[in-house]
Amino acid sequence: MSIPAELRNELEDLYAEYADALDSGAFECWSDFFGEPCLYRIVSKENHERALPMSLVRCESMGMLRDRALALQKLNVYGPRAWRHLTSHLRATEAAGHIAVRANFAVFESLHDQTTRVLVAGRYLDKVVRTDAGLRFREKVCVYDSALIPGSLVAPL
Amino acid sequence: MSIPAELRNELEDLYAEYADALDSGAFECWSDFFGEPCLYRIVSKENHERALPMSLVRCESMGMLRDRALALQKLNVYGPRAWRHLTSHLRATEAAGHIAVRANFAVFESLHDQTTRVLVAGRYLDKVVRTDAGLRFREKVCVYDSALIPGSLVAPL
Amino acid sequence: MSIPAELRNELEDLYAEYADALDSGAFECWSDFFGEPCLYRIVSKENHERALPMSLVRCESMGMLRDRALALQKLNVYGPRAWRHLTSHLRATEAAGHIAVRANFAVFESLHDQTTRVLVAGRYLDKVVRTDAGLRFREKVCVYDSALIPGSLVAPL
Repeated sequence: MSIPAELRNELEDLYAEYADALDSGAFECWSDFFGEPCLYRIVSKENHERALPMSLVRCESMGMLRDRALALQKLNVYGPRAWRHLTSHLRATEAAGHIAVRANFAVFESLHDQTTRVLVAGRYLDKVVRTDAGLRFREKVCVYDSALIPGSLVAPL
Repeated sequence: MSIPAELRNELEDLYAEYADALDSGAFECWSDFFGEPCLYRIVSKENHERALPMSLVRCESMGMLRDRALALQKLNVYGPRAWRHLTSHLRATEAAGHIAVRANFAVFESLHDQTTRVLVAGRYLDKVVRTDAGLRFREKVCVYDSALIPGSLVAPL
Repeated sequence: MSIPAELRNELEDLYAEYADALDSGAFECWSDFFGEPCLYRIVSKENHERALPMSLVRCESMGMLRDRALALQKLNVYGPRAWRHLTSHLRATEAAGHIAVRANFAVFESLHDQTTRVLVAGRYLDKVVRTDAGLRFREKVCVYDSALIPGSLVAPL
């Protein structure tokens, strides 16, 4: 059952703006993509499939998202790098009170003086809600495929 | 000449569901994406461009697809891995009796205890038909770019 | 503010045809995607962000595009390889006299007897205009993320 083309169009825009904010390093905007109450997780495929609770990142409110973004911009120390998101296979289903959205993603990392490499590939399992301000994430769960990530995930996926 | 946005929407859904089935390891559903008569091939770019008949995989009926899926699930031995498809640049043209669809793809592989790598990139050259059950593949030809694939293609593309 | 689904559909087609022409080596068609006056640049993220004028490639007219395509086909010497573009997160905004389009891209390269690798990832920052012949690029600026590119960019992005 397909969603209407216009809704797909809106969702494509949401995911594009989200990726653009992260790839541009505009972390101060990150929490604006969410609506309270919210949940953001980065979890390995292995843990996700076994329904294990351990996450690499877990934020349960917009305050926690803002706190994390601030740490990223003011506290954390890491070398310069560029991230580039590609997203594909967006699928949406209208559910009670939200739109369930799944999509595949890959993030490519370019470290200074190194060639571009695959940082991580995986799947978004999200819940999107319509608010007065537009579409927002109620939940964003980033399930990454590899148990091993080169270097570290210095920013949100 | 663009196809209507609604048809693109339906095709995006078909390709997303197909990728999702493969990436989730739901190989028992693989043949459901095809409609008899059907043809599935994985062929190198080199052979495709020279119109050489040799394929890495060739299935000429849904029975052959089911047989292959069963072998994959019950017989073949290979280490645990995750696959993740990204597809892009979907182009569709209405032809006599089918919709011709082309798209670019890349598959990322995550082996246990290794970082994610590019497994294969290439192009789908497909024929899609509308059946009572929805859109189905009449033909799916996966043309991969590299003569050399790391490890092996343990699953369909 | 989303663009209409039908315009997104047309733009997706433009980017798919463009990628297809390059990946197929049909460089003689490259300039057909542009409308005079036109600008084509390949520039590093570092230079782009500092607004530095240095580009890896800069063509300021369709004549320069044709000249470059001809050089690529007749003069330049390089080993056989396949390129495959993936594009994602296309965002369009209607501006005065053109449509501003941004999209993320990655190009995968397969050299003879080597596995497929990430060649380059980055962002298109384009201006598209509607002409009698269809949508055409007024400007195409390809901003690549990594200062270091493996081998060389033998063809346009």
